[in-house]
Amino acid sequence: MKTAAIIGGGVIGGGWAARFLLNGWNVRVFDPDPEAERKIGEVLANARRSLPSLYDKALPAEGELTFHAEMADAVADAAWIQESVPERLDLKHKIHAQIQAHAPESAVIGSSTSGFKPSELNAEGARVVVAHPFNPVYLLPLVELVGDAETCAQAADLLREVGMYPLTVRKEIDAHIADRLLEAVWREGLWLIKDGICTTEELDESIRMGFGLRWAQMGLFETYRIAGGEAGMKHFMAQFGPALKWPWTKLMDVPEFTGELVDLIAGQSDAQSGHMPIRALERLRDDNLVGMMRALKKSGSGAGGVINSHEATLPVPDAVELPVTVSRPVPQSWTDYNGHMNEAHYTEASAQATDRFMEMIGCDAAYIAAGGSYFTVENHVRFLDELHEGDALTVTTQVLTGEGKKMHLFHRLSGPEGKLAATVETLLLHMDLNARGTSLPSPEVADKLASFAAAHAGLPLPEGAGRHVGQRG
Amino acid sequence: MKTAAIIGGGVIGGGWAARFLLNGWNVRVFDPDPEAERKIGEVLANARRSLPSLYDKALPAEGELTFHAEMADAVADAAWIQESVPERLDLKHKIHAQIQAHAPESAVIGSSTSGFKPSELNAEGARVVVAHPFNPVYLLPLVELVGDAETCAQAADLLREVGMYPLTVRKEIDAHIADRLLEAVWREGLWLIKDGICTTEELDESIRMGFGLRWAQMGLFETYRIAGGEAGMKHFMAQFGPALKWPWTKLMDVPEFTGELVDLIAGQSDAQSGHMPIRALERLRDDNLVGMMRALKKSGSGAGGVINSHEATLPVPDAVELPVTVSRPVPQSWTDYNGHMNEAHYTEASAQATDRFMEMIGCDAAYIAAGGSYFTVENHVRFLDELHEGDALTVTTQVLTGEGKKMHLFHRLSGPEGKLAATVETLLLHMDLNARGTSLPSPEVADKLASFAAAHAGLPLPEGAGRHVGQRG
Repeated sequence: MKTAAIIGGGVIGGGWAARFLLNGWNVRVFDPDPEAERKIGEVLANARRSLPSLYDKALPAEGELTFHAEMADAVADAAWIQESVPERLDLKHKIHAQIQAHAPESAVIGSSTSGFKPSELNAEGARVVVAHPFNPVYLLPLVELVGDAETCAQAADLLREVGMYPLTVRKEIDAHIADRLLEAVWREGLWLIKDGICTTEELDESIRMGFGLRWAQMGLFETYRIAGGEAGMKHFMAQFGPALKWPWTKLMDVPEFTGELVDLIAGQSDAQSGHMPIRALERLRDDNLVGMMRALKKSGSGAGGVINSHEATLPVPDAVELPVTVSRPVPQSWTDYNGHMNEAHYTEASAQATDRFMEMIGCDAAYIAAGGSYFTVENHVRFLDELHEGDALTVTTQVLTGEGKKMHLFHRLSGPEGKLAATVETLLLHMDLNARGTSLPSPEVADKLASFAAAHAGLPLPEGAGRHVGQRG
Repeated sequence: MKTAAIIGGGVIGGGWAARFLLNGWNVRVFDPDPEAERKIGEVLANARRSLPSLYDKALPAEGELTFHAEMADAVADAAWIQESVPERLDLKHKIHAQIQAHAPESAVIGSSTSGFKPSELNAEGARVVVAHPFNPVYLLPLVELVGDAETCAQAADLLREVGMYPLTVRKEIDAHIADRLLEAVWREGLWLIKDGICTTEELDESIRMGFGLRWAQMGLFETYRIAGGEAGMKHFMAQFGPALKWPWTKLMDVPEFTGELVDLIAGQSDAQSGHMPIRALERLRDDNLVGMMRALKKSGSGAGGVINSHEATLPVPDAVELPVTVSRPVPQSWTDYNGHMNEAHYTEASAQATDRFMEMIGCDAAYIAAGGSYFTVENHVRFLDELHEGDALTVTTQVLTGEGKKMHLFHRLSGPEGKLAATVETLLLHMDLNARGTSLPSPEVADKLASFAAAHAGLPLPEGAGRHVGQRG
C-alpha cells in the first residue's frame, strides 16, 4: 500500500487526500491550521458520496488517514508528496526546503500551484514538478504536469493509478494551459459585467446552455472541426480567421479592478446563487458531474474514457464462492405452449432462490412466524436461454447490497452444462408483518446478511445489473 | 399549426428547420443552393435520432417540410422567419429587403448572425432581431436575442415553445456574449499552439478533462463562487483579482494569422480527429449531448431545467382506452407464507396479460401452431401493493413499441378499487418456433400490433418504465 503526504489541507489539499485515500493509499496530512481535520473531513464526505458512483467495480478499500504536526512524520515513506499551500513564492520556497530535508529520494514532489513555473519553485534548489489539479480534485481527471521530463513520466504513471488524466505541458509557461484559457474568459467576462452587457447569471447561462455542453465532451478544436463540416479545419479557419482583426474582444486591455467592480459582481452572484449554501452547491455540482461523466462513460469520450481505463485496472478480487440457492430439475408443469419453461416459473425459481437465501441469513420459518420477513419490491429479469422439461436448473445468489432494511440480490439461473438461462435482479425490504410496514431486521439476520455482503463486496457489478428493459450497449 | 420560414440552409439553417419541424411547425425553406435539400436532410436525420431522446413524452407530430424557389412563397404565413446566410453585411441587407417585402407584419424576423449588431442589420430599414443559436441548433437550448425589446419578448415566447432558452442581451455589442468568450479562448488558444506549449488535442484535453465539465452545468461565476467557499464571491475575487496584473494571457496582442499557423493547426487537428468522418463525429457529439443533458434533467440544472419545463408544456393526448388483458380473482393457491400473492404469480398474471394481448393481435393458438410466437426476453416488475386471496385483479396493457420483431409492453396490475398493485414492463421478440430464432411476425399480426402502437403513441411514458432496479427519483 502506497502513502501520499498532503502538505496544506483546504479544498485542493483535501481533494487530493480524498483522491488518494479512496484509491487505497494511506494519506498523511501536514497542515498547521487547527481546522484542517474538519475541512478535509468535509471534502472527504463529498468524495465518498460521489467518486465510487463513477465506477461499476468496487474501488480498493480506503487507506488510513492521519494528521501530523511534524513535516518529517508526514513525508516519511511517501511515494507522492503534494504541496497545496497559498500562492506566495516565498512561502512555497520555505515549505519545499522543509519537504526536501525529509522526503525519501524516490518520492515525487508535486505542487498544486496554478501560477508558478517549476523554474520559479526550484529557484532555491528544490526538486518539485507542477501537478496542477482542478476542483473537485476527487472527480475531475485533469492534472497538468510541468517540469523535469523523467519525474513527470513517473508522476503520470502514479496519477493514472488513482484514475486521473495527466497532461504533460511541453514548455513551462505562466499559468500552464487551462488557466490561461480561463483567465482569458475571466477578463472578457469582467468587461461584459462592468459594461452592463449581462449579469453574472446571464453570462453563466450563455455558457451552460450552449458551448459549455460542447466543451465537456470535445473541447475547442474538435468542436470547430465539426463546424467546418466536410470541408474540414482549413475551411473553418479560413472562415473565422479574419475575425481576429475585428474588435470581438476587449482583451487588448484589462478592466480596472475597483471596489465597485467587486461589489457589482459579488452582488450579482448573491442574487444568482445566494439561495443555496456552498455545501448544497457542491453536492449539486458533484451529482451533475457524476451524471455527465457516467453519460460520457458510454461513449468513452473525454472523462468517460479515463474512467473506463481506470476501471479496467481495478483489481478483480479473489474468486468468491456464490451460494447455490436452487438446484432442481425443471418439472413438466413449468413448460408452456411455446414448449419451454414459462416466464412466470423463472420468477418462481428466483423466488425460491430468495427464500433459500433468506433461510441462510436466518430469516427462516420461525423468524417469519415471529413477525419479520422480506418483501420483494422490484424484479428485473433477463431471459437469455430456453429451459426445457427435465433440465437441471441451478441458481446462485450474489448480494449487491445488504444493509438497513434493504436486501438487493442478483440471481443467476443456469441450465444444463452451466449455460446462463436468465438473470434476476431483485430488491427486497425487510417488513414487520404485524405493522405491515418496513422495519429493520433482527441483529442476527442483519449480521449474517452483512457478512455475505462483505464477502461479495469486491465482486464486479454483474453484467445485466442496474439496467432497464431494452437497454443497449 | 405554425409555420417557420428558413432563409438559407446549411448546418445552422438546417438545425433551425429541424428544431421547428420536430416541434410540430411547418417549415418552408428558401435557399438557391441546389444541394440545400440534401444538406437539410442530413441535419434532420441527426435531429430525429437525438432530439426526441431528450424527452419522456412524445413530441408533437412533425410538421410539413417544403422547399421554395421564391422568397414570397417561403415567407407567406410565417410566424417566424430565420435568416442564416453567410456573414456578409451587403448580402444580409439584400436578403432582408426581400424578406421585408413579402413577410407578414406579425412575423418575427430573426438573423443567425454571430457578429453583426441589429443596428447594422437594420441600417437600411429592415426590422430584424438577432437570434443567434448554437450548433447543433436542434439540441443546444441557447439563443441570444438582441434588438427591439418588444420583438425580443415576442421572439422569446416562440423560442420557448420549441424548447429553446432565449437569452436577451441588455445592450447590443459586437459578437453578443458567448462568442466574445469563445473569441477570447480562441485567440489565447492560437497563441498556445503557435508557441508550441501544446497541440490542438492537448488543448482540447485541458478543457474536457477539467473545466469543460464544470461549465456544462454551472458556467463561470457559479463555479468560482464554489471555489471561494464559505467566504463567498468577494473572497474569491480578492484572491484572484491581483492575477489580472500578471502576464497570464497573451491577449494584449493577437497572433499573426499566417499560412504556417493555419497548416500547423489543420495538421494537428487531422492527427487528433482525422480518423473519424465528420458525420461520425456529429453522431458522437449528439449522443454525448443527449446523455449529459439527460443527466442534467435529473437535477434540473442548466439545459436539464429547460427540457423539464418544455416537457411540462407538451400536450397530454386525449384519453386512450387501454385494453383490459386480465380480469380475475386472486386464487388461494397464489398466496404464500407472507400471507399475500407471491411474486411469481405477479409474473404469472403478467404472462396471462401478454398471452391475451397476443391473441388480440392475432398471435393466437392457430398462429402459434403454424410456427410463430413471441418470446419474453426481459421483464421489470415493480411491486407496489399487496394482493390477497379473492381480490379482484385487473391488468391493462399499453404498447410502448411494436415494430419489426419487437413488442415492448407495459402492464398495470390493479387490485380492489383500482389501486395499482404492480407494473410489469416486458420486452418480447417474435420467434420462428421451427428455426428457434427471431423472425418478423406475419403482416396481419404486424398490422394489428402497429394499430395498437399508433393508438398508444401519444401517451406519456408510464411512470416506472425505462427504470432499473432501485432507481431513485
